[in-house]
Amino acid sequence: VVVVGAGFGGLRAARSLARAALDVTVVDARNHHTFQPLLYQVATAGLDADDVCYATRGIFHRQANARAIRARVVGVDLDRRAVVLADGDQLAYDHLVLAAGGVTADFGVPGVVEHAFGLKSAADAIAIRTHLLEQFERYERGHDGDGGLLTFVVAGGGPTGVEMAGGFAELIHHVLRRDFPAIDVRRARVVLVEAQDRLLATFAPKLGRKAERRLERMGVEVLLGTQVAEVTARSVLLADGTSIGTRTLVWAAGIRAHPLGHALGCELDRGGRVVVDEALRLPGHPEVLVIGDLAAARNADGSLVPQVAPAAIQAGEHAAKVIVADLRSEPAPTFRYRDKGSMATIGRHAAVVELPGGTTMTGFLGWVGWLGLHLVLLIGFRNRANVLVNWAWNYLTFDRGSRLIVGEDLPVAPMLQGDGRDLQGPRS
Amino acid sequence: VVVVGAGFGGLRAARSLARAALDVTVVDARNHHTFQPLLYQVATAGLDADDVCYATRGIFHRQANARAIRARVVGVDLDRRAVVLADGDQLAYDHLVLAAGGVTADFGVPGVVEHAFGLKSAADAIAIRTHLLEQFERYERGHDGDGGLLTFVVAGGGPTGVEMAGGFAELIHHVLRRDFPAIDVRRARVVLVEAQDRLLATFAPKLGRKAERRLERMGVEVLLGTQVAEVTARSVLLADGTSIGTRTLVWAAGIRAHPLGHALGCELDRGGRVVVDEALRLPGHPEVLVIGDLAAARNADGSLVPQVAPAAIQAGEHAAKVIVADLRSEPAPTFRYRDKGSMATIGRHAAVVELPGGTTMTGFLGWVGWLGLHLVLLIGFRNRANVLVNWAWNYLTFDRGSRLIVGEDLPVAPMLQGDGRDLQGPRS
Repeated sequence: VVVVGAGFGGLRAARSLARAALDVTVVDARNHHTFQPLLYQVATAGLDADDVCYATRGIFHRQANARAIRARVVGVDLDRRAVVLADGDQLAYDHLVLAAGGVTADFGVPGVVEHAFGLKSAADAIAIRTHLLEQFERYERGHDGDGGLLTFVVAGGGPTGVEMAGGFAELIHHVLRRDFPAIDVRRARVVLVEAQDRLLATFAPKLGRKAERRLERMGVEVLLGTQVAEVTARSVLLADGTSIGTRTLVWAAGIRAHPLGHALGCELDRGGRVVVDEALRLPGHPEVLVIGDLAAARNADGSLVPQVAPAAIQAGEHAAKVIVADLRSEPAPTFRYRDKGSMATIGRHAAVVELPGGTTMTGFLGWVGWLGLHLVLLIGFRNRANVLVNWAWNYLTFDRGSRLIVGEDLPVAPMLQGDGRDLQGPRS
Repeated sequence: VVVVGAGFGGLRAARSLARAALDVTVVDARNHHTFQPLLYQVATAGLDADDVCYATRGIFHRQANARAIRARVVGVDLDRRAVVLADGDQLAYDHLVLAAGGVTADFGVPGVVEHAFGLKSAADAIAIRTHLLEQFERYERGHDGDGGLLTFVVAGGGPTGVEMAGGFAELIHHVLRRDFPAIDVRRARVVLVEAQDRLLATFAPKLGRKAERRLERMGVEVLLGTQVAEVTARSVLLADGTSIGTRTLVWAAGIRAHPLGHALGCELDRGGRVVVDEALRLPGHPEVLVIGDLAAARNADGSLVPQVAPAAIQAGEHAAKVIVADLRSEPAPTFRYRDKGSMATIGRHAAVVELPGGTTMTGFLGWVGWLGLHLVLLIGFRNRANVLVNWAWNYLTFDRGSRLIVGEDLPVAPMLQGDGRDLQGPRS
């Protein structure tokens, strides 16, 4: 069995096959699993990348029938049953699980690719953190010629956008206020732009309103029914003609399926998702399963299964069952997505939780539930313990431990360049 | 008071002035303090950069008379008493503490600047970690055409070199052995090259021999009395004509003073260190103190004070005393470096410790002492707690949690480029 993608779906599929009499190879272009629901905390300096990522190879230390390799998959030869890697090598398979996930969708808005930040990887999150801190450093040094250095725009009012906007507001008003005593942080703006007329559109309406009020109390400007029309290096232009001067746009407005789907040459839906049968198999290729954000799976009522982590995890479990059933020449079970509810955190003591059947939790109770669930879901004791330490520290001190600008230093000063050839040591 | 540099010396000077009736500005090109003694653990995936770095601004949240700014210092106008920043701004001072530290010294060996890794910053350490992991990934994918992918050379047998070599050996034989079951890690080589005829030349001779035997038991090849003559992208050429095929050279062979000394236009010693008087003041400029690795401070017997962290910390305390004495029109005290001993860790259960007076500790006892001291010295409860969690995890499981390759993914495959314009999301 070859599993493409070490996200929630791919990992669950591989681990669910631990006792099956077959060999599992998980292939991913990154060498680690990324716990995407907490990436926004890396972007807002609350956690470090290591706290939300886990080396994929380590996940399979104790699973004798599985191994992980790092390689970029560029296509699938369905007839010869082989996955094609970027370096030309091929991985033969008897069963294939495609779990390549989703990528940021720019919906064709000009400038998003060039100027906006996505939030799909640890590198994305660190880029946002570094950029935000840089804006404050530049502002303090008086480099805010045309304004906008301290304006931070988030596009998309789903859970990721709400969490990003809340995280920005807390970082600025609790931490950077003390880091930069020379700056009046009340001049900083956090703007959340959502095309629909409410936040958290997939939640109950009252939860969206709750999130909106809470964000506004935290100082976030919430713009509903507003679309981003164009992005430049210095501004975000809204559909109503308003221009917001800013150097920072985080694009959390949507995802689409990974382009690997295009390389299959089979039917895709509008979002680039691969059309699958009721067992998540590729039509005509029962040995190929497509799961998670890459798959256009359907519920019994014909609606699409949402592109969320719990759906990918359930699909991963299901994929393992289909493969085991096939080995036993049993019929493939039908995939049934069970909604376990949704949650989004807004900030300190504030989260919204919606359970199946319409039960909702908000405020402190919701927040505690959110904390516990995410801690339990994080892979690995070490990550969990580190996250607990960091959260306790952040909570008790209103501090954020990870606000480092690592990497590029300021440019070497011209007057030192002659002598300063190894000013920063070799290769740094 | 302006303090240039947020290393051990600069921070201690600023904190020692907390109760003085003056304003302290700490300026550094990085926005964080780097706990350099533990950088080798970041390079070998045992700790994350956040565990050994601390945002400088946060250090002064509770010190009302101090602030930190991030800027690159390019010179000092001694006559007008102003520090010149890279952007042309100036910081006026009444007292100046120069604590810019040291940079890697290549001793003129060709190729070191282009091909070797230094270990002076978090970015350096992450570069080493990423590079080492990449070599194993490439080797597994069969890209070891001319050999050398799994050969790791460390130049310099001081504490940093010994710790790096031991860290590489442990990472490879305990962790990567399980991460890469397809690779026979016994084919990996770790080579430690030292120009003198023993390791840890500043320690008692028996400790150097102890470290040597221990490293050899861990599988490290120790080459004594051997100098690196030239470095290329594929090899390290030794002075005796031997060529070692390798893509990885960590240069821990020495430091020299930061080139800021050159910008002062005053007397420097052979290592670029600024010559100071017995109170660490710049001759002719009693309002300027030079401390730490940048200063050529001398002991009572005329020998140079070593370029180590404890000496910088003591000099920082001393600088604060000189400034306070000057405010009271009292004579400046003389700086007396007190040797508190030295320690270097080699690996699990193994460290060498030398206390003043010749007492030595080795093995398990030395290792426990090393752990405790470094934990106590780390700034900040959060860092300490995280380090404790990571160390406990590493110790109990023989695992390393931070072996992530973050940042550049593998190149986008040509066949996906047409469609894959935002394959990795915007800006990533």
